[in-house]
Amino acid sequence: MTISKQQILDAYWFRHACKEFDERRISDEDFACILETARLSPSSFGLEPWKFLVIQNPEIRERLKANAWGGQRQIPTASHMIVSLIRNSRMMRYDSYYVQNLMRNVQQFPEDIIALRTSILEKFQRQDFDLMASPRHFNDWSMKQTYIALGNMMTTAAMLGIDSCPIEGFDQKAVNDVLAETIGLDLQDWGVSYMLTLGYRKHEPGRAKTRQPLEQVVDWYF
Amino acid sequence: MTISKQQILDAYWFRHACKEFDERRISDEDFACILETARLSPSSFGLEPWKFLVIQNPEIRERLKANAWGGQRQIPTASHMIVSLIRNSRMMRYDSYYVQNLMRNVQQFPEDIIALRTSILEKFQRQDFDLMASPRHFNDWSMKQTYIALGNMMTTAAMLGIDSCPIEGFDQKAVNDVLAETIGLDLQDWGVSYMLTLGYRKHEPGRAKTRQPLEQVVDWYF
Repeated sequence: MTISKQQILDAYWFRHACKEFDERRISDEDFACILETARLSPSSFGLEPWKFLVIQNPEIRERLKANAWGGQRQIPTASHMIVSLIRNSRMMRYDSYYVQNLMRNVQQFPEDIIALRTSILEKFQRQDFDLMASPRHFNDWSMKQTYIALGNMMTTAAMLGIDSCPIEGFDQKAVNDVLAETIGLDLQDWGVSYMLTLGYRKHEPGRAKTRQPLEQVVDWYF
Repeated sequence: MTISKQQILDAYWFRHACKEFDERRISDEDFACILETARLSPSSFGLEPWKFLVIQNPEIRERLKANAWGGQRQIPTASHMIVSLIRNSRMMRYDSYYVQNLMRNVQQFPEDIIALRTSILEKFQRQDFDLMASPRHFNDWSMKQTYIALGNMMTTAAMLGIDSCPIEGFDQKAVNDVLAETIGLDLQDWGVSYMLTLGYRKHEPGRAKTRQPLEQVVDWYF
């Protein structure tokens, strides 16, 4: 059975940046489905440069909230809260143990394909996207991939009738420090990309969804 | 009628990076739905820092293909090809005409809210994500938002039985130059983020989807 276009679009109109959640909890089955669509999301070269922390601990949430002006009402009330991490540049270089191990033992490419992909990846990282120039370039590239998973998680949630609010409104450095202090995150290997709060809306959205019209965001070239 | 979890996950298992498309064309209705889920995708502060070019012209495709090692078989065979652009840093600053006009005339915020959001956005851009330090930082931030739309377009396609292949495998500068020469793209205002080819698979994928197991990408903190 296929999903209809109207069902898809209904989910997009349902989704909004939810400001506050009520006391309802997301079922284990629904939340597992949301995480699974993050896990199955595509990423550049299939390198999965991410990890998803599910922060249910109230003390850790409180510490994160103190550094996240964008999540003041969402973080304490969310049924589930995800902090998306990226693997830092030294883990994502073409010649890193992580990348080489992933190609060999997760993607299970044969050795000749690993050698070929490594050389293509080196060229891509050095030249095409100029990632080697700065760890920031590298990390932003990894973060882009985590935003694919972000879009997918929010859409999955909406399709299951679950609300969400993505949060970029935080001090990156301060949040990294909180994660190092509270869960022992190794900041040489990892860094925060975004937060995502999930639950059920306490109030209906105060205003209608707005977007630029299609003709302002799409151009056709025949 | 809601969408079931199994229907959602089936689409994720259906999706793969399609290497070559056959001669079937995506219907206008299906393609409009894919574009609509891009248009309705969320973005930071709702600023929609994007444009989606649909490149159906064979000469332009050929020029793009010449600079995109990652799309050699996909670009010529795709039923539809999208080039995602970002608005460059000078358009995305908190005080730009684009941002101010969007808040006023698209989002339709009242003047006091525009002033408040402008000051929050300035702090975010200057401090929280340190975007002002370099146009590259700014552009990577805008590109992250376009990857939300990327994930959503690929998922929408898969839910409609349509294949896709995202393409990062290109020389950013060369592709920008091609777009300037062929369609007159103003590179002071715009830049390429990614390409996305869409159509119907010519062959079944040669290998099964691989991913790290859930316990390697998710950590819970209770």
